[in-house]
This record gives sequence, structure tokens and C-alpha cells, in this order.
Amino acid sequence: MLPIAVDAMGGDNAPAEIVVGARLAVDEGTPVLLVGRSEEMGDTGDIPILEASEVIAMDAEPGSSVRRMKDSSLVRAAEAVRDGTASAMVSAGNTGATMASALLRMGRIKGVSRPAIATLLPAPGTTPTVLLDAGANSECSPDWLVQFGQMGAVFATDRLGIREPRVALLSIGEEPGKGNPLVKEAYEALEAVELAQGVFIGNVEGRDLLTDAVDVVVTDGFTGNVTLKTLEGSMKTLITALFASMSDRPEALEAADVLAPEFDALYRQFHPDTYGGAILLGVRGVCIISHGSTGATAMKNAIGIAAEMVEAEVVDHLTTAVGSAD
Amino acid sequence: MLPIAVDAMGGDNAPAEIVVGARLAVDEGTPVLLVGRSEEMGDTGDIPILEASEVIAMDAEPGSSVRRMKDSSLVRAAEAVRDGTASAMVSAGNTGATMASALLRMGRIKGVSRPAIATLLPAPGTTPTVLLDAGANSECSPDWLVQFGQMGAVFATDRLGIREPRVALLSIGEEPGKGNPLVKEAYEALEAVELAQGVFIGNVEGRDLLTDAVDVVVTDGFTGNVTLKTLEGSMKTLITALFASMSDRPEALEAADVLAPEFDALYRQFHPDTYGGAILLGVRGVCIISHGSTGATAMKNAIGIAAEMVEAEVVDHLTTAVGSAD
Repeated sequence: MLPIAVDAMGGDNAPAEIVVGARLAVDEGTPVLLVGRSEEMGDTGDIPILEASEVIAMDAEPGSSVRRMKDSSLVRAAEAVRDGTASAMVSAGNTGATMASALLRMGRIKGVSRPAIATLLPAPGTTPTVLLDAGANSECSPDWLVQFGQMGAVFATDRLGIREPRVALLSIGEEPGKGNPLVKEAYEALEAVELAQGVFIGNVEGRDLLTDAVDVVVTDGFTGNVTLKTLEGSMKTLITALFASMSDRPEALEAADVLAPEFDALYRQFHPDTYGGAILLGVRGVCIISHGSTGATAMKNAIGIAAEMVEAEVVDHLTTAVGSAD
Repeated sequence: MLPIAVDAMGGDNAPAEIVVGARLAVDEGTPVLLVGRSEEMGDTGDIPILEASEVIAMDAEPGSSVRRMKDSSLVRAAEAVRDGTASAMVSAGNTGATMASALLRMGRIKGVSRPAIATLLPAPGTTPTVLLDAGANSECSPDWLVQFGQMGAVFATDRLGIREPRVALLSIGEEPGKGNPLVKEAYEALEAVELAQGVFIGNVEGRDLLTDAVDVVVTDGFTGNVTLKTLEGSMKTLITALFASMSDRPEALEAADVLAPEFDALYRQFHPDTYGGAILLGVRGVCIISHGSTGATAMKNAIGIAAEMVEAEVVDHLTTAVGSAD
């Protein structure tokens, strides 16, 4: 396999933790190409490096940065995929700039109106739920949502092994007439179309996201991003409140100690790093977008997922599915 | 004080639990008027009853039901407030029909474009966060969002005692330019207006909802409802997963027993019933909308909140604030 291009300069813990994560991935057998300023990377072992002199800041304006900073690690990583020197790109840096780099350098899959960010939500006791769009397009048309459903189903199969993924629209009631105008129109469009993969099951509500009710949840990027951040925030708040509530009684603290393995497993299950990052679906290459707070282990996981998606040929499957839906 | 009109027939546990809740409220000194079919209510003690022969089903179409079923418990409860025989109404029944009854029978406060549902979200260690609109208007204009901010601030003061509530828009980034077109326009409008109460602090994200970052979070009813349901669902999933994870080891089960008081407090803090229900802001009367699953205790709390809001004169304060904002 061609190496995974890793943006060594992106993320709150770059480059140190990113490089450690890359080394862990290499140790597990995944080839990596580190992209960025080699003099800042520290000990990279035997990992090949693609030099890039510029770094797009976490809070920089995405579009103009990507256009202006042609020698940035993000742009160079995307070009490596385009040029066939890397098989995928991974970044924990500026999300908007990662999307823009992938879109401008790799280009869209033929027939795809807009790429979308797909993310995995934990559903205890069953496969995770795919949520898309998690933030690429803050305003969407009904047709785009139909494509998101199609792309999400392909991803659910390749990533999670779900053969016939159940695709639903995120709405405020299960009945067909419930929702805003976008959802109502998308509902009709999804009912009218035959998905190349997966089956449309109607609307679901926010409370269904972490359950077995659905495999792929489709929404616009504004609602999707608000939902994702709400989930992350609520999990953090609840877990923090749980630990805080135990510190008032010595017996409670002792009991909490006994329960450490259970708490730890729970924390890991609901932590955003668990699944290694989101994926940008609809561009001509695998592009993994990791959380800004990504540490070494999460980066290792993200690189592993990137390799897995390359081997699963998800881009080919998306091309076929979206092409056949036209 | 005039009695609180309680829809005895609304909710999954009506009328039995609703009547028990009403009796608990009366025992605590709040006068109640039970509305519905007296022959189905069981032992109502000394509580006065307003007979209403019809019941709007939980899944009935709201608008047409309210227009057609003039002798329904919901319509009669709203009329009691309009006619001055009750000071407020409370229902755990069909949310849409509760809104429609209040809107059609009590009418809107002068100057209010659209009433909005305000709900409280738990924020451990600090006052709860007011979220509105939680589902009354699935499509909104920027001007409505400005009014929601104004109404939410008045409610935050009267309900939570926050003197100068911090009002923010729910968006997908904190910077002014972040969000969908609705949020961007509402941002400019909120910056341009002087709120009669509260102060606009910009955008917040989903992860800020359960924290001390903000007091009043404004959004359209689609996003608000999705967010609320997502929160409810994630809390339930996490707590269920926590308990499930403990049942594998005997020592863990014992430790969980020791922690029962902490778990119980946490469960109560995050349970939707804790705050007794949402409030419909912008109609000429206090209208409390309780969860369909409301039991006796939650109904008692909801009736208490209704009385509190009547005594705080929230409707007068809303009238003044919205009037002065014109």
C-alpha cells in the first residue's frame, strides 16, 4: 500500500504527538508519509518526510489560506494523494482548511454535488451510528441530503460491515410530514429514489442517535455539527458531574476506585477520539479529519482507519454508488 | 391566587398520575382546577373540576383537533386562563395541541411575532441554561430569533433569578461569521438591538449548553428540538450503559450499591422531569408544557412552576420587554 500522508503540523498537540502517533502506526505495519517542517518534528525514526514550509493555523480562514499557502502541510498532503505518492491523508488541524485542501487538490467524485463529513457516534451494544453531514455544508439542498444518504450507506458498509444500512433523516418527529422544509423535501426525494446501497427508513429523532434504531443519519451540516458538539459536551458534563459527585464521601471514593475499570471503559466508549476521526466523503481520495485535541493514540487510530478505508476501496464504491444514482 | 388549570387527561399516565400530582400540589398550598372528564379522574379530594367531555389524543393533528374539539380538556383549560377563572395552564398532553390551544384561546402578547417553547437544561454547579425555541417553530426568521432572545432573558430572570442574563445564538463556531444564513442575520440583528433585559454575547456551540458559558441559548425550533432530544437521548444512553457495565462483576455491583445516592442525585439532575416542564413564552398567560411521560411528582413540580411564574408576573414582564423592543 502507498503510505498515508499525515499532516504533522495540524492539531493542538502537533507536531510531537502526531509524530509519536505516526510511529505507532508504522510499528503496527501501516506505511506513513509525514508532511511538514522536518526540523520541528523531532525523532521521526525511519518515516519518510515530505517537506512543507508553511502551516495553516487552527483558526485561519480556510479557503483563502489554502489558496495562498501552497507550500502548507495540508495542501502538500492533499497533493500527495492526488499525485499518487500517498493513498490517503490525515489531519488533526484546521477542519475547514483540511476540507478545502482535499476538495481543491483531489477534486470531487464525478456526480457528487457536495462532499460531506461523516462521523461515528457510539451506540452501546451495537454498531456505531454514521452521522453526516457533521459540518461541511451549513446550508444544504434536498438533493444533497439524498446524496449524503447514499454516501453514508456506502461508508457504513465499508467501515462497519453493515450490509444493508438503514438510512434516516434527522427530524423533529417520525411522521413523514414532520420537520423543516428541507427535511420534508428530502423525505420525498429519498422515498422516490432507489438507493444503490442501503434502505431509507424515514425520520428519526435526536434520541435515536445512540441507539440501534438506525445506521446512517442524514442532516444538513449546521444541524449535524450542533448535534455532534451537543453530544460531546453532554457526555463530558455527565462524566465530570459523576466524578465530582463522588468526592464528597470517603466510602463513595473507595467504591469509585473499585469501579475504575467500568468507568474507564465507559469513558473510552464515549470519547470523541475512539473512532479516530471523521471522514470527508465525496472527494477523490480518503481524507480523515481528526479532532483538534488528537493525541498519539488517537492519531495512530486515525491512520489505521485511513489505511482500512483505502483497502476497502471506499472511494471506488462511492463513485459507483453516486454514479448509478444519477 | 387563582387556581392553576391542569389538563387531567393529557399525558401517558393520565388521568391517574396527573390527579395524584395535582393533589400533591394542593397539599403544598397551590390551588388547582382539574380539567377533563370527572368520571375518569378517580379520587380528586376537594379539588374543583371543570368538566370537559373531549380528549385530544397524544398523536392527533394539533391545529385541526383544537379547532374541532371545542369541549376538549386542553381547549377548556386555555379558556379558563383567558376568562380569568384560572391563572395558568399545565398539560402533559399533545405538545402541538397545547401550544395551539394557548395560542388560539389566550392569544399572543402584543408585538410578539411567534411564541416559543423555552426549556431548562441542567448545568452542574450553576444555574440551568434556558434553551428556546425548543420546537414551536420549525422554520424561523432572524427577527423572531431576536424576540426569542428577549423573551428568554425575561424568563431567565423571573425563573432563575439571573439579573443580566447572557444571551447567545446556537451556532457552529463562536466567530460572528459562523453559522447558516439564519444565524448570521440574527447575529447582526441582535448586535444592532438593545435588549430590554439581558446582554447578547455572540455565538455558542452545542458543547456550551450544559456549562456556565451562557444563560439563554437562542435557536430555531427545528435545531432546538433536535438538540433537546439529542441531550435527552444521550443522557439516557450513558446512564444505561453505566449501569449495564457494572453488572458483570460482583464487586462492581457492590460498589455501585454504595454509590446509589450519588447515582440517584445525578439521575435526577439530568432527568427531563426535574424542571417540571417547558414554558410557552409569548402567549397571554402562563402555559406549562410537561413531558408526555410525566408522573405525579413531575406534575406537582410543573404546577409549582406555573404558580411561581404567575407570582413572578412573567407575562407582564414579557409584554413590557417585547413592547419596548419595537
